[in-house]
Amino acid sequence: MNDTVKHCPDTEFQMIGDLIKNHPQAEKHLFIKGAKLMVNDGKTSQVCFVEQGDLQIILAYGDKVLFEISAPVTIGVQQLYTHCYNYYTIFKTDATVWLLDIECFKTVVENNNIWHELMVVICHVMDRIDDYHRTTYLATNSYDLVKHCLEQIWQLPEQERENTSVFTYIMKRHNISRSSITKIIHSLNVGGYIKTKRGILLQVKKIPHGY
Amino acid sequence: MNDTVKHCPDTEFQMIGDLIKNHPQAEKHLFIKGAKLMVNDGKTSQVCFVEQGDLQIILAYGDKVLFEISAPVTIGVQQLYTHCYNYYTIFKTDATVWLLDIECFKTVVENNNIWHELMVVICHVMDRIDDYHRTTYLATNSYDLVKHCLEQIWQLPEQERENTSVFTYIMKRHNISRSSITKIIHSLNVGGYIKTKRGILLQVKKIPHGY
Repeated sequence: MNDTVKHCPDTEFQMIGDLIKNHPQAEKHLFIKGAKLMVNDGKTSQVCFVEQGDLQIILAYGDKVLFEISAPVTIGVQQLYTHCYNYYTIFKTDATVWLLDIECFKTVVENNNIWHELMVVICHVMDRIDDYHRTTYLATNSYDLVKHCLEQIWQLPEQERENTSVFTYIMKRHNISRSSITKIIHSLNVGGYIKTKRGILLQVKKIPHGY
Repeated sequence: MNDTVKHCPDTEFQMIGDLIKNHPQAEKHLFIKGAKLMVNDGKTSQVCFVEQGDLQIILAYGDKVLFEISAPVTIGVQQLYTHCYNYYTIFKTDATVWLLDIECFKTVVENNNIWHELMVVICHVMDRIDDYHRTTYLATNSYDLVKHCLEQIWQLPEQERENTSVFTYIMKRHNISRSSITKIIHSLNVGGYIKTKRGILLQVKKIPHGY
């Protein structure tokens, strides 16, 4: 469940990313905070190297945030061998991005023999996606999911946490209504387990297992 | 959703499997129909090559069947780079299996430079697991899941279908109670959409989208 502590394979991301960036057909783009990127629109497939910026990987069919990650990171490289690509990206900050057609990328991989590095980054992504599905599956009710999200929010850097609405955070990740969240957050405040103010998490003591 | 038509990378499975089998420390095992194999028990990790036999990959935390696959197939190779391995195997037939410690396997991969083949099989597994999660996520109610399973059963070879209880099949894959399934199957029979007898699917006309 500790997806935040997982080691990110920065070296491999950077190495693959540099090859994308240095390809003559790679296109540089600047994305602004909040912008959406689809590397696969059903017709064309691209890979992407995010050189600078923070982003969220979103499950396309449910519009849910699976995980967050920061540059250097490559997006969509598993499309070389998977049939479906069910994800898109939302940038959390302004970002510098390089896009390259998947066929060009395939040649890059073959010419540079970077299958090993590719596997490392694909398995990392696989792990993070598994984390999301496991958390969602194991949660038998909304309370479990709210608890999990509050614990994640509490681990965020202070500045980010102070700008994170617990309602938005939870609803972006799971199918829970605002009113259910309100009820649970209220109870936890009353019980003295957490302290929130206008949707911002100020304090966490110990969030009980049951509800 | 057409997970049954997906091309299985037999060549890569066989190639990796032969290297497992030919390793001096690989152990040959015979598993009988119904036997369970955990390549990761939390302490030791192994990779497995199924040389002969059919099997199911099960989601460990929910005990749900994710997909079925037949030899030649390797199991657990993604453990080289993933932190969690949430799966175990149930054999559908008697099976001939080779087991090898993950550390020995790592050396095999490095010495033979089979990262490319590894990636192909890992991405195949990733695709199949994604299929399961997508189907489950997109199903807004039990009816959708029952419909999906009935369509899968109808695609099975005749002999297998005649020995497949729709109740067992569905309950092994999704969290739906026997009584809910009974109700849906009964309605579909009454509506003339399908024909079942003692839990065996005999005929499918067209299963309606809604319920």
